[in-house]
Amino acid sequence: MGYRAPLEDHRLLMQMLGFGELAKGRFAEATAETAEAVLTEAARLSEEILAPLNRAGDLHPARLENGVVRTSPGFAEGFRALAQGGWIGIAADPVHGGMGLPMTLATAVNEFTGSACLALQLNPLMTQGQIEALEHHASPEIQGLYIPRLISGDWTATMNLTEAQAGSDVGALRTRAEPLGDGTYAVTGEKIFITWADNDFASNICHLVLARLPDAAPGTKGISLFMVPKVIPNPDGSLGARNALRVVRLEHKLGLHGSPTAVMAFDGAKGWMIGEPGKGMAAMFTMMNNARLGVGVQGVSVAEAACQMAEDWARARVQGRTAYGDATIIGHPDVRRMLAEMRAETFSARAIALACAMAIDRAKLGDSPARAAFLTPIAKAYGTETGHHVAQLGIQVHGGMGFIEETGAAQLARDIRVTLIYEGTNGIQALDLVGRKMMDEGAEALSLIAEMRASGHAALTPALEALEAATHHLLAQSPLDRAGAATAYLRAYAQVLGAYYHLQAAALDPSRAGLARFVTGRLLPRHAAFLAEARVGSADLDPFPG
Amino acid sequence: MGYRAPLEDHRLLMQMLGFGELAKGRFAEATAETAEAVLTEAARLSEEILAPLNRAGDLHPARLENGVVRTSPGFAEGFRALAQGGWIGIAADPVHGGMGLPMTLATAVNEFTGSACLALQLNPLMTQGQIEALEHHASPEIQGLYIPRLISGDWTATMNLTEAQAGSDVGALRTRAEPLGDGTYAVTGEKIFITWADNDFASNICHLVLARLPDAAPGTKGISLFMVPKVIPNPDGSLGARNALRVVRLEHKLGLHGSPTAVMAFDGAKGWMIGEPGKGMAAMFTMMNNARLGVGVQGVSVAEAACQMAEDWARARVQGRTAYGDATIIGHPDVRRMLAEMRAETFSARAIALACAMAIDRAKLGDSPARAAFLTPIAKAYGTETGHHVAQLGIQVHGGMGFIEETGAAQLARDIRVTLIYEGTNGIQALDLVGRKMMDEGAEALSLIAEMRASGHAALTPALEALEAATHHLLAQSPLDRAGAATAYLRAYAQVLGAYYHLQAAALDPSRAGLARFVTGRLLPRHAAFLAEARVGSADLDPFPG
Repeated sequence: MGYRAPLEDHRLLMQMLGFGELAKGRFAEATAETAEAVLTEAARLSEEILAPLNRAGDLHPARLENGVVRTSPGFAEGFRALAQGGWIGIAADPVHGGMGLPMTLATAVNEFTGSACLALQLNPLMTQGQIEALEHHASPEIQGLYIPRLISGDWTATMNLTEAQAGSDVGALRTRAEPLGDGTYAVTGEKIFITWADNDFASNICHLVLARLPDAAPGTKGISLFMVPKVIPNPDGSLGARNALRVVRLEHKLGLHGSPTAVMAFDGAKGWMIGEPGKGMAAMFTMMNNARLGVGVQGVSVAEAACQMAEDWARARVQGRTAYGDATIIGHPDVRRMLAEMRAETFSARAIALACAMAIDRAKLGDSPARAAFLTPIAKAYGTETGHHVAQLGIQVHGGMGFIEETGAAQLARDIRVTLIYEGTNGIQALDLVGRKMMDEGAEALSLIAEMRASGHAALTPALEALEAATHHLLAQSPLDRAGAATAYLRAYAQVLGAYYHLQAAALDPSRAGLARFVTGRLLPRHAAFLAEARVGSADLDPFPG
Repeated sequence: MGYRAPLEDHRLLMQMLGFGELAKGRFAEATAETAEAVLTEAARLSEEILAPLNRAGDLHPARLENGVVRTSPGFAEGFRALAQGGWIGIAADPVHGGMGLPMTLATAVNEFTGSACLALQLNPLMTQGQIEALEHHASPEIQGLYIPRLISGDWTATMNLTEAQAGSDVGALRTRAEPLGDGTYAVTGEKIFITWADNDFASNICHLVLARLPDAAPGTKGISLFMVPKVIPNPDGSLGARNALRVVRLEHKLGLHGSPTAVMAFDGAKGWMIGEPGKGMAAMFTMMNNARLGVGVQGVSVAEAACQMAEDWARARVQGRTAYGDATIIGHPDVRRMLAEMRAETFSARAIALACAMAIDRAKLGDSPARAAFLTPIAKAYGTETGHHVAQLGIQVHGGMGFIEETGAAQLARDIRVTLIYEGTNGIQALDLVGRKMMDEGAEALSLIAEMRASGHAALTPALEALEAATHHLLAQSPLDRAGAATAYLRAYAQVLGAYYHLQAAALDPSRAGLARFVTGRLLPRHAAFLAEARVGSADLDPFPG
């Protein structure tokens, strides 16, 4: 049947999470009417323009021909539609041509576009991240030159962090930037895993590159950030000379074939420093939270697409007499169990992502940024694990046809796999959660637990007590024990939080009570297993027991 | 470093499971010396001959050219080595040229060959299944004509069950077999998902086809089994006329690219009935248990390959200063956690598979067949889920490189995916466990629990009590509630059983105590979450809560 944007879920969640309270200050435009118009239009774009591109992107990967990247059939038109609708700059500052809408709305839109065609959605997602970095750290000249053209889609953006020896350990990077004396720099080095490093539909590609100045300190403190465009722009935005950078090769990936992932060579390429010398990592970190949320939302995107595909299949496929009397396999209890688990986990991940986006928006209106900071690693790790898990269940619901590529179920599982890795592996998200995000002595973790308890859902009480006790226990542990507990603790927290949102949603909309019961009965108990694992800490890891 | 067969694990497990007691009666040859020689030689074949083929099979899929299947580079030579070593007939009756060795040894060998090259290993696995079916149900003439040539690898075998409208619901199949009056039949119909339907290294392909006689009863009772060879053999084994069957197309699959999966058309093809009219399903079922174990072992194969690949990577990849002081990422606690979980689950799945194989062998020596019947769905479902889960963890350990196909980590995850579906989906395994395999009022389920309790492992006591209580609870439920509980119950049982084997192994070999502690601390607690889910039964599934 093709993808249908889940508008009802988003309307309910926006009501539940208090979206209406945002329409003040910088978000005065973000009324309920605007939100509805935005969601409806983004749904149309995603369903009609982007979703038909998804399979073509998989079958006809982006390829490198004589140094030029040729994108998948239809991607140029799809990108143009995204840009012309103003979707790239949905959350960008209106001063540069953005819509200035809340992250909550941008998150919903990104979910829809990601469900429709994740490989293509990655392109504006990178650009949105770069716009945010430039808004915070670039000079007014750079902002004025680059941001409007990124928003219009004339130019697109990349992030160049990783090198062969510097992945999670960004501080090990070696790319150099030598001052040229005129305020610009010559950037030299090789970067890998560069998403959408080039394309054939934008007239310029704006690379944000992490590099070291001569005599910079070792590690992350010696890293600065540079804008290194593919074509050097004149001050009026017209294009000048080709810069000294090139795509070396594209990777052969498990999924996201429509998104070119490149090895990039910079050979004395001209660059402009963004922000302060040695503050490149700090500049990256200001945008990191939002980028991580964006990746978590990719998990929700694929989970939703997988739910729809599996439900369509289960309502069409006839196979045996069913226990519930349905003509199709949705009448088999174990198929129902899988479909309900898919729906339930997808809703949990969506609610957590939107709650995180709301917290980002509230922080922009003056609230504490702690809630957004705390929820971000959970939204990223749980969102992407959910995308993966739900896509795999989707394959299972399809039976033998799930293994055949033509159904598209396998593509969803392949495409989503990298989201558990990029933008900080999920292991690193968990370390962030139990480390940096609990340096407030667990205040935010505990305050969210208190908030859940105040809602008075009896079905949640034992889980909240266990989670609170585990939080106190964790806070008393060594960094090593926290590290050994990190992933399990994050999973436990997400499981409880997801169940809480289901109960809240069912309180608003009684038609959701059945799914909430499914969650508290079948999925919530998993928190106890995760907390038991978290209690082990690192006691069983040294020596390596394998 | 390439694949290394896990000989130590197998030696330990054979000791632990009492392999030595098998060397009597029909297994008199199966001495410890024979076992050691078999394992060592199978290891050599797998490491040196088969493992180098695995990537080529993925990159250069089998293809159909003018009706002829061209196999992946090197597969013909690999198959020849397998055949010449006698490995196809390792468990087959010596009267037809088989080695007559226990299933326990065959299982170990199949694990090694599957780790090395799963796509190729599927070919002899199908043939082994067919040999078993013929041994039980074919006439002496058919046996004498076919089995020696299947064992020698001159001919290979397929199973033709599925049709477009008849997957899990085999009874819906429509392929017809019309008697020709000379004792043979004309078989007409289209079959799908036919594994190794054709190849370019065997001189004949022997298709076992499920079909209906004219006026047969509807459903499974009207199904008979037929041998329909690609080339009609003369009684002396020389090849006569081409039969009226053909490969229509090969499927484009998520993985196992080296294994051609075909749509087959039979157009009045000449066939010979195997067994009694209307007893085709019964004949399939006699071999089903062993085939299901074989698929579960494929999960162990891929899990082991993924463990080795991830450990090699984690011991070579330098990335950041590690908590445990190692130079490479194996010193990061969360990486260690993943690697240990991979090792632990792999050993659990291997132990369950070998325990199942031992039970099959003991039954052939006169013990009750109930133990093998009970363990088979657990070995299949847990083995394949473990293969999938461990391969996915392997991708995660690789970080960004896990998403790049050249490491091979992604191939393992792609290849294993179908094993959760074929030979009866894992949902069907679970229904088999709580249905047919507990029609003894749970006697076997409870007797195995009692056996585990008798071992006196204190760490297991609460889990055993919970499992026993859940078993009694389940036995009192309606078929519908059992169906809603099935998958969760199977998973809980497997988790406890796996922990039991870890504790048994550690008792024999103290160097394994660390891994056993990891299992009881981190993985065993999951049984409680699964049992909580199983208790829900079907209460939350009607109406469908999604």
